[in-house]
Amino acid sequence: MTQLQQAQNGILSPELKACAQEEKIDERQLLELVARGEVVIPHNLNRRAKALAIGSKMRTKVNANIGTSNLSCYPEEEFAKLKLCEKYGADSVMDLSTGGDLDEIRLMMLKQSSLILGTVPIYAVATKLERSNLDITHFDPEMLFGEIESQARQGVDFMTVHAGITKWSVAAHAKQERILGIVSRGGSLLKRWMLRTGEENPLYAQYDRLLDICARHDVCLSLGDGFRPGAISDATDATQISELLVLGELVRRARERGVQVMVEGPGHVPFNDIVANVQLEKRICHNAPFYVLGPLPTDIAGGYDHITGAIGGALAASAGADFLCYVTPSEHLCLPSPEDAKQGIIASRIAAHIADLSKDYPQARDRDDKVARARRKMDWETVFENSVDPELARQRKNETSSDLSDQCSMCGKLCAIKTDKEAEDA
Amino acid sequence: MTQLQQAQNGILSPELKACAQEEKIDERQLLELVARGEVVIPHNLNRRAKALAIGSKMRTKVNANIGTSNLSCYPEEEFAKLKLCEKYGADSVMDLSTGGDLDEIRLMMLKQSSLILGTVPIYAVATKLERSNLDITHFDPEMLFGEIESQARQGVDFMTVHAGITKWSVAAHAKQERILGIVSRGGSLLKRWMLRTGEENPLYAQYDRLLDICARHDVCLSLGDGFRPGAISDATDATQISELLVLGELVRRARERGVQVMVEGPGHVPFNDIVANVQLEKRICHNAPFYVLGPLPTDIAGGYDHITGAIGGALAASAGADFLCYVTPSEHLCLPSPEDAKQGIIASRIAAHIADLSKDYPQARDRDDKVARARRKMDWETVFENSVDPELARQRKNETSSDLSDQCSMCGKLCAIKTDKEAEDA
Repeated sequence: MTQLQQAQNGILSPELKACAQEEKIDERQLLELVARGEVVIPHNLNRRAKALAIGSKMRTKVNANIGTSNLSCYPEEEFAKLKLCEKYGADSVMDLSTGGDLDEIRLMMLKQSSLILGTVPIYAVATKLERSNLDITHFDPEMLFGEIESQARQGVDFMTVHAGITKWSVAAHAKQERILGIVSRGGSLLKRWMLRTGEENPLYAQYDRLLDICARHDVCLSLGDGFRPGAISDATDATQISELLVLGELVRRARERGVQVMVEGPGHVPFNDIVANVQLEKRICHNAPFYVLGPLPTDIAGGYDHITGAIGGALAASAGADFLCYVTPSEHLCLPSPEDAKQGIIASRIAAHIADLSKDYPQARDRDDKVARARRKMDWETVFENSVDPELARQRKNETSSDLSDQCSMCGKLCAIKTDKEAEDA
Repeated sequence: MTQLQQAQNGILSPELKACAQEEKIDERQLLELVARGEVVIPHNLNRRAKALAIGSKMRTKVNANIGTSNLSCYPEEEFAKLKLCEKYGADSVMDLSTGGDLDEIRLMMLKQSSLILGTVPIYAVATKLERSNLDITHFDPEMLFGEIESQARQGVDFMTVHAGITKWSVAAHAKQERILGIVSRGGSLLKRWMLRTGEENPLYAQYDRLLDICARHDVCLSLGDGFRPGAISDATDATQISELLVLGELVRRARERGVQVMVEGPGHVPFNDIVANVQLEKRICHNAPFYVLGPLPTDIAGGYDHITGAIGGALAASAGADFLCYVTPSEHLCLPSPEDAKQGIIASRIAAHIADLSKDYPQARDRDDKVARARRKMDWETVFENSVDPELARQRKNETSSDLSDQCSMCGKLCAIKTDKEAEDA
């Protein structure tokens, strides 16, 4: 039985119990949330990763996208990124590899990491075609279902499928003006396949078949937003919302079949539209966990989009988004290096923590208070230990060495904390 | 006459005209805003910097704090930072030097930069005492007023004074529990001086004398928040709000004397308190321009506080804060390097632009749309030119060279934009 089916039957799975403990929430309350589909515990039966709960009332989670590209394929760098994910607090990884031996890389990642792992199976299909010098959009639906089944057997915990690109939502898209059209790889492939064949998207037409595979292995579906806006100008338009309406229908059908499901969201969104986007997803998609890419509230920050994504992510998560996909400094420019991945994870973790503080998530404040108390006492080691990157904090403090070891070189002898303490001691 | 007095008398000053053109706002409308004190144009009569309007309906402005420290004094690095301010789009600088020849450094900065320049005169007073091996809190009020007058003559455009630390607000503070007490240098010095002497804060007691100096040279006052919270736990408490009430009174008195005035704000503030902080300042301080330090919505991100500050700053500015003081990656740890200053400026500029987009500031969207259109055409040069850091964006794109020069190594041959364009061309 899937985690959803167990919860629907009132069974407290070991994974649910572990998550309840981790989240400091009553087991029965978590069971209710999982049974209603407001929380998912992606946990492929063939793998047994560390249990992770994503959704309402849970700590905000962070995903890191890693994986080779067909223009830049160094698997060892990807394994280095995988280690950084664990070190800097990513809660999950997605392997988006399109270069090298895809099965080997995926199996290694599944083996080497305890984090839940997601994929986008259509990438593997397109990669196979590309290597055979075929048009990447000329795939056979059987190839796609074969790939999904194979990855489910390998132990992939969640999969992005762009099942909301349908004849109906494509028709809505055709009526819209967009600057940047489609920026989702899966979405662009499926739309082209549909235009060429005149047929319905196989992921939608054969959605029950997809659900059967997911139910068998307990793969959590992540309903991709193939029509997500790729520019501020395109945000929250009828194209995007049409797809969201389809996703709402697909959420209901997945739950009825006992399949866990999340919904993916934009993308490039102006800051003043972010809260509405979260509210809309929660309403239309029946409170399914919302997994957002960024969002990015400006298009002009290439090279710094980890910051843009952290700004959008903090607001989205504080408004109810549950799962933040990191954005790295290399977004829009090149495949991230391990250092980019580290920067992306840390920026998203800061955003997630800020949102958890904002929502009074239990015990989120303890860590901040520890740092604040340690600052008062100038107990630098405690400050470092509780910082997002202890090594860097220690290194920066020690950069300008000083005899006055309690103060830092920023305020020097005019340190306000020192002056204030002396006033109180006087 | 000060800019405020000219506006009160219906005179369109050359600076106001220049600002109106820059901001693409009707001159008469800007005159109204300046006359009411909702917009300031800090512009010392002895200097004549580039005119800059800060306040309601204006583009969100960014300040960079630079200056030597008594534990780390390399004036040439500060001049390097000054150049970076102009290059990466800081709108103003504050010279907070406490190391080296303070007058020489300040005069050089006033000469070498066209940006408006601010200071915190009490730092110079404390530095002088410290060099004479005297207690830095044992200053004579005459020294402080002498320093203010001298800096006003030198051409400083705006000055931070902590005039809201009064017997009344100190009494409110005494009743409060805070983890981190006072984190403002000026605030801590003044509180200690008051506790020692039993007298009222001279900046408050002799506020009219301060206003006379400012009126004479048209120095814009920046009313400092000496009681700003230094930890999430201390935010928006009675201590902070008591001081804000005093600042509201001081805003009114400054305007009556024809002196331009801004109000400084926190500091460490949880994300869910930021909007309320902006609304409170606008109400209590009669819509005076709000100049925020960050704000920082978590305490745990030492080494990455430019990101924390950008997250808080985007929300504050979108809610109506007018002027963002940058925070650099070295905040809380050491004096910023030139690279830190660059990172701080860029992060704050991203936050400010995101807020301007969010508020539909005229033409803010043009730049995003240019980037989005260029992405569609894979016109990389236009993408770079319109990015916050063109050099870095160009360098990252070219990092992984490729024969397929139109695509980047992130998506490689599966580029969605390419796939989508081919679909439309088909």
